[in-house]
Amino acid sequence: MLQQPGVTQNLARFIVEARWDDIPHEVRHQAKRSLMNFFAVALAGCRTGPVEIALRSLAEFSGGKQATVVGRSERVDALSAAFLNAAGANVHDYCDTHLRTVIHPTAPVAPAVLALAELRKLSGSDLLLAFILGNEIQARIGLAISPSHYSRGWHITSTCGVFGAAAGSGKLLVLDERQMMWALGTAATQSSGLCECLGTPAKSVSVGNAARNGLWSALLAEKGFDGPAEPLAGVQGLYRALAETPDLSVITAGLGEDWEFMATSYKPYPCGFVIHPVLDCVLDWRRSHPNAEVTRVVVRGNPLLAVRTDRPDVSTGRESQVSVQHAVAAALVTGKAGLDQFTDACVRDPGVLALRSKIEVTRDSALSTIAAAVDITTADGKIHQLSQSAARGSDVNPMSDTDLEDKLRTTAHGWNPHYDTAPLIDAIWALDTSADVSSLVRLAVPR
Amino acid sequence: MLQQPGVTQNLARFIVEARWDDIPHEVRHQAKRSLMNFFAVALAGCRTGPVEIALRSLAEFSGGKQATVVGRSERVDALSAAFLNAAGANVHDYCDTHLRTVIHPTAPVAPAVLALAELRKLSGSDLLLAFILGNEIQARIGLAISPSHYSRGWHITSTCGVFGAAAGSGKLLVLDERQMMWALGTAATQSSGLCECLGTPAKSVSVGNAARNGLWSALLAEKGFDGPAEPLAGVQGLYRALAETPDLSVITAGLGEDWEFMATSYKPYPCGFVIHPVLDCVLDWRRSHPNAEVTRVVVRGNPLLAVRTDRPDVSTGRESQVSVQHAVAAALVTGKAGLDQFTDACVRDPGVLALRSKIEVTRDSALSTIAAAVDITTADGKIHQLSQSAARGSDVNPMSDTDLEDKLRTTAHGWNPHYDTAPLIDAIWALDTSADVSSLVRLAVPR
Repeated sequence: MLQQPGVTQNLARFIVEARWDDIPHEVRHQAKRSLMNFFAVALAGCRTGPVEIALRSLAEFSGGKQATVVGRSERVDALSAAFLNAAGANVHDYCDTHLRTVIHPTAPVAPAVLALAELRKLSGSDLLLAFILGNEIQARIGLAISPSHYSRGWHITSTCGVFGAAAGSGKLLVLDERQMMWALGTAATQSSGLCECLGTPAKSVSVGNAARNGLWSALLAEKGFDGPAEPLAGVQGLYRALAETPDLSVITAGLGEDWEFMATSYKPYPCGFVIHPVLDCVLDWRRSHPNAEVTRVVVRGNPLLAVRTDRPDVSTGRESQVSVQHAVAAALVTGKAGLDQFTDACVRDPGVLALRSKIEVTRDSALSTIAAAVDITTADGKIHQLSQSAARGSDVNPMSDTDLEDKLRTTAHGWNPHYDTAPLIDAIWALDTSADVSSLVRLAVPR
Repeated sequence: MLQQPGVTQNLARFIVEARWDDIPHEVRHQAKRSLMNFFAVALAGCRTGPVEIALRSLAEFSGGKQATVVGRSERVDALSAAFLNAAGANVHDYCDTHLRTVIHPTAPVAPAVLALAELRKLSGSDLLLAFILGNEIQARIGLAISPSHYSRGWHITSTCGVFGAAAGSGKLLVLDERQMMWALGTAATQSSGLCECLGTPAKSVSVGNAARNGLWSALLAEKGFDGPAEPLAGVQGLYRALAETPDLSVITAGLGEDWEFMATSYKPYPCGFVIHPVLDCVLDWRRSHPNAEVTRVVVRGNPLLAVRTDRPDVSTGRESQVSVQHAVAAALVTGKAGLDQFTDACVRDPGVLALRSKIEVTRDSALSTIAAAVDITTADGKIHQLSQSAARGSDVNPMSDTDLEDKLRTTAHGWNPHYDTAPLIDAIWALDTSADVSSLVRLAVPR
């Protein structure tokens, strides 16, 4: 690959020059939806093992009580808060997804800009603009190297997230074009994260680092810490090291007009995306047949469903997230498909175990990955034929605003049954009218 | 590449089981030599721009005054100290080199283990053993992917240094085999650093992170933070992501018997290695001819000398490190080739500028890269023919213990002319007999 100068500078200029008034209404609204989803998943993840251990460790080294850890009473320095909130938001793989890159975009960016919002007085429109730009930049940096980058074993949420966090933080710090390039350069040299770590706490370290190191890159740039002129497309730059055949043109094509950020989707269920249309069928049916005894289930889906999730025997909550048999059984037994349905306890539930063995998976290439058909046989011998053409949460059938509120209410309830989510939900929808968002994240801590 | 299990476990077992009594005398002594060189370069780097800015930024977030920053009165948390001492030691590219990988091995490892030595009571032999193991492990991880990894743009000191810091720190924390594997896994997912950043402050971030994140990986593992079973050779592991054609056999071949650590060399001069034999000639001659007026110099060297350093016109100290014309002119004018000879000021010195234009470079394939011949013509018309067959600091002509002490004395003098280096030098040579090394690094701060 030859050096192609100007790529980083063009991105930096776009970030620096972008104004709130330039952001279309639907993009602004999408940012609020992403933050709604962020608080939902961050509250869900804030007491998990990786966050507990990382918090205990960082507390030994952290100075000041600058910033909030979502869902926790502890306060830590801003860099550590960015780390912990990113790790917590992503730990369940329940966060949002930029479909073309499989980047989980909000986990690295929101914690960085929210930590800055506690350090400096910022308006809601400042925060939203920075958040949108961070999301947009990391999606485009990732698009240029997709799908080969991910195939090579890179955890793209981490490797590209550090740029999103740097761009969003740099925007809030009002960096000039030169400083923004430095921030992106310092982010580039911290880009890391391996898919081999998925399914282990080590995953949370690269996601947390993306937020922490992106934020720090911007703070260093503000103090004059400089970097290379072309960290992305230079002869020894990011793309040469981390990618096979980058397509640099997609980084800036239509920038500011076509918003990649709009291609973000949200998960209604904390399990593999291909299982989602199956769960839509099963949950709807269970609601209208609460007492029916199920004797057999045949699930028909795109071949990818069987390839990824035909796992009749799983023993941990983590594994159950990619088992269609478990997901269907748990949904039929409990009537739900939330975090509680993908725990070790639910996997060991005798009722779920008994039903799991009655579920078959078949392949149908005529179905897309967001479609499924399910035949449920009940004890009375009747066969109930169900189908879903576009899963809830997919790009053509997105979760509604109310769905996202409900997701937040549900995970918040699991976190603390007495917590009133209304002030947080109201604050998120009203963010663009807020003159000071320093207290936003503090609406999501124990009282 | 197919998954090859056991690579990480074999490394982890070696680190866990290694004992001080197993370490040969010459390897122990090499460790002290490396630490002597470390303090020399850390004192030289402790007041440079990257360290100043990073320290100012980290101080906003750092808690406690746990650990020492070499050469500074400020104290910071242990993670930040590891970062700053690694960044400072490497900033001038004056540190040690593992020749087969071009890893600068001590910069990431020493700061991590020294920071731990301030947190916990450790003996000198504990410290030396951990330091040796960290160096050995990172060299072997790097060897398996050399030279293609570096060619691809990876800054190998950073990408492999994080493993050295994790291994050394994990040894001091007395991790068991399983925990050591976790530490190496969390290190793997933080492996990063781009050569594109060389020559800019951004370089210091990946080197600092290697020390900081390696140390933190070990601390997390101690608390039970787990990771993948095969972070190095797994199907989506480090080698798949960061390398072309790894040779996994070199990681463990002869481990504990053949010490890669012994292939570490030290730089007598803070400039490109190919210039070193030229400087040996010129400095020796100048000492015996202090007043001779030089009218012409012809340097003859391996073709690589011309390729890399035939730069008659340079304008910054940084560029001057790879200009043989500048190096020779400065050495002839000042009689030295230390840090002061590779500054912006020295590049602008009228005497140096005048002499620079009288220096020619010729190519001679018969000479190795560590050899050179120099013809100096003086005003009396005499031609002085000089040659060096093996540069000082090369593997066949290593710097002596006294040379290393002198290097420390020289850089310490530049740092503070009134500083007495004797206590630090004595403490390093006596390290293996010390029962508590917590105060070692405090011998290198302002009094």
